[in-house]
Amino acid sequence: MIKLNRLSSTDSQFEASLNALLAFESTQDEAVTETVTRILADVRKGGDDALLDYTRRFDQLEIAVIADIELPKSEWQQSLQRLQAAEREALEQAAERIRIYHEKQLAQSWQYTEPDGTVLGQKITALDRVGLYVPGGKASYPSSVLMNAIPAKVAGVKELIMVVPTPRGERNDLVLAAAAISGVDRIFTIGGAQAIGALAYGTKLIPKVDKIVGPGNAYVATAKRMVFGQVGIDMVAGPSEILVICDGNTDPDWIAMDLFSQAEHDEQAQSILLCPHSDFLDAVAASIARQLDTMPRKEVIRASLESRGALIKVRDLAEACTIANRIAPEHLELSVDQPEQWLDKLKHAGAIFMGHHTCEALGDYCAGPNHVLPTSGTARFSSPLGVYDFQKRTSLIQVSPQGATTLGTIAATLARGEGLQAHALSAEFRCK
Amino acid sequence: MIKLNRLSSTDSQFEASLNALLAFESTQDEAVTETVTRILADVRKGGDDALLDYTRRFDQLEIAVIADIELPKSEWQQSLQRLQAAEREALEQAAERIRIYHEKQLAQSWQYTEPDGTVLGQKITALDRVGLYVPGGKASYPSSVLMNAIPAKVAGVKELIMVVPTPRGERNDLVLAAAAISGVDRIFTIGGAQAIGALAYGTKLIPKVDKIVGPGNAYVATAKRMVFGQVGIDMVAGPSEILVICDGNTDPDWIAMDLFSQAEHDEQAQSILLCPHSDFLDAVAASIARQLDTMPRKEVIRASLESRGALIKVRDLAEACTIANRIAPEHLELSVDQPEQWLDKLKHAGAIFMGHHTCEALGDYCAGPNHVLPTSGTARFSSPLGVYDFQKRTSLIQVSPQGATTLGTIAATLARGEGLQAHALSAEFRCK
Repeated sequence: MIKLNRLSSTDSQFEASLNALLAFESTQDEAVTETVTRILADVRKGGDDALLDYTRRFDQLEIAVIADIELPKSEWQQSLQRLQAAEREALEQAAERIRIYHEKQLAQSWQYTEPDGTVLGQKITALDRVGLYVPGGKASYPSSVLMNAIPAKVAGVKELIMVVPTPRGERNDLVLAAAAISGVDRIFTIGGAQAIGALAYGTKLIPKVDKIVGPGNAYVATAKRMVFGQVGIDMVAGPSEILVICDGNTDPDWIAMDLFSQAEHDEQAQSILLCPHSDFLDAVAASIARQLDTMPRKEVIRASLESRGALIKVRDLAEACTIANRIAPEHLELSVDQPEQWLDKLKHAGAIFMGHHTCEALGDYCAGPNHVLPTSGTARFSSPLGVYDFQKRTSLIQVSPQGATTLGTIAATLARGEGLQAHALSAEFRCK
Repeated sequence: MIKLNRLSSTDSQFEASLNALLAFESTQDEAVTETVTRILADVRKGGDDALLDYTRRFDQLEIAVIADIELPKSEWQQSLQRLQAAEREALEQAAERIRIYHEKQLAQSWQYTEPDGTVLGQKITALDRVGLYVPGGKASYPSSVLMNAIPAKVAGVKELIMVVPTPRGERNDLVLAAAAISGVDRIFTIGGAQAIGALAYGTKLIPKVDKIVGPGNAYVATAKRMVFGQVGIDMVAGPSEILVICDGNTDPDWIAMDLFSQAEHDEQAQSILLCPHSDFLDAVAASIARQLDTMPRKEVIRASLESRGALIKVRDLAEACTIANRIAPEHLELSVDQPEQWLDKLKHAGAIFMGHHTCEALGDYCAGPNHVLPTSGTARFSSPLGVYDFQKRTSLIQVSPQGATTLGTIAATLARGEGLQAHALSAEFRCK
């Protein structure tokens, strides 16, 4: 038995119920913050010694000297060789599709010349060096290596440094193979806040990076927040979510499994279905009840669906789109006939999966677009991870002697209005 | 008399001296954090009442009802009318140039179709609603209104809400005129952490926004950091900096004034000059000493130059470029003949001002590119404020029935490798 939340948009309490369902406050644990503060300070001060010490202690890793935490490329190649043919092929095909999609995101420098000879432009440069955090243990996902590493290499990042903890020496062949396939340059077997500190401040062995990306537990996320400014970071993700809009014409078993696929991540994951037909919602509920017991991760799925999931009856698909914009979901499945007709109405979502045949899982692994997406409504103002996160812009201004007179007069007037005399004179010195 | 720091790249202690000069740690004041935490909680809970209370208290503003904190458009128009012709013209010309430059940053949606009918794409949407913080008092800069507001409106932001404190009712005509010119939609006369809270959480009167941009004092910056996640924010800026590379062929008075123009902002601002010729450095030092007394803000300039400025002799211009990349300055003035020949060597800078006639002040006001730039070395991984900060991307995936079979097989293989059974089945259900 599973107890599903059923809502209807015509309920008088609907708005409040939806808000309650969506409410999620990421709490900052003070104990975590204290521990991370200490670890970062130790690594900053103690460098490789501190890093070695923490790695021995937290990962029970037996290493003689610090240099041993680097995993030579030959070992990742061996991991790749060890894969079954089907796995290797799947990984390589996924990588290729991700590369092709992300190449379309590459920005190019541009400039233009004004009639008086003044040149203005925008120069695009890749980041020099990027750190990629990969969790160890059960949350260690090869797909996540592809999704983080490939955009960085497409952007032109020269040195991509991966860190992955190997507790008691346990390595994940799929993860190492993914690194080999996606162009990672170096791998260090370190993790936790100490790995983030090493990447942010640099040690004798670990080069200081310009940006750190990749998922991690509370210690890693807290460490990333703390080193932000010193280095760039990607967004700190909340629990994963899917919002499915269905017109009732998809097989209810497919939709039930799509909801499961989000719920199986963890108990705080959120799966919501919107449909105008209550009989279809009943059919999905029945399918959920029927299929649940067959799932290896049924307890996680049950906890997630009961606490954070919902089947919601809406007036029509237009209302479903309005609700979707209010939620701004990470994943939006538009499981309807002619999904393209609703696109203009949909303003906020990390990724939209269109049509009955497009389940989120295809996008999670191999369709091409990135699976690192804005969570918890942040799609209102942010974007999927992309090549643009590994490129930066520099403005170019080259004013001609004639332009210096025209622009200098404007600048001096405005500078005096702001009480900045040196600004005004600096411009006026260049006026003819 | 002014005591300037003089360094040479051939000094044995050069690296250490440079590091000491650049070191700047932004400290988080605990008292500020506590105050801001309380204000944000009050505004979140108390809404307009709390906002009114804080505004009366902190800004000594006499307002009868909360609705009076909105400044009707007619009043900004009057501010615009009141300007002197030269000021109005300068403001309008600057706005027009900024608009033209930023229009080139507009991103367009794209999509492509694969041979089996699968469609992949990237949809661009503007943010719905943006808040623009404008400081009151002496740091209230009309140019800053233009630089923040115009990119947002070019991006297509529908509602741009400006907040600006008016202590004791004091308004700045230039700031309000800049808002009128640059397409701001509504203005509220509130400031401080309470204004940030109102924008982030919304009150009955103040609409909740999706992102908050604009400069502010320590309370505002702390509040922005705290509401991040709830809304997007721009970068929290450190002190402003300029790095000038000069070949010795620019008038030393011009270069001295360029260094002043950065130093006059505040005592923590940083002005550094790199030149291969020590006689030119001497000439600039002499010019600084001679011109300093004529500057209205000479005490600020002196304090800034003595504590954080430096004249540095380098071996040659190539070494100057290497040092520039290490510093990753906010503003880089390349005051040399044929500046374009050095561009390939320069990787990290917010903006590059090229040639003897291009001083930073032109870019601060009216050249076209944005004056909100990454500070404190963050140009290694971040970009000037731009239209891209007000647009976001959504991935589009529409897999054809045939594509669902090909991609489903890959996805299922990888999902099983990660132990995610529901992901695998969700994909396989759609395989033929």
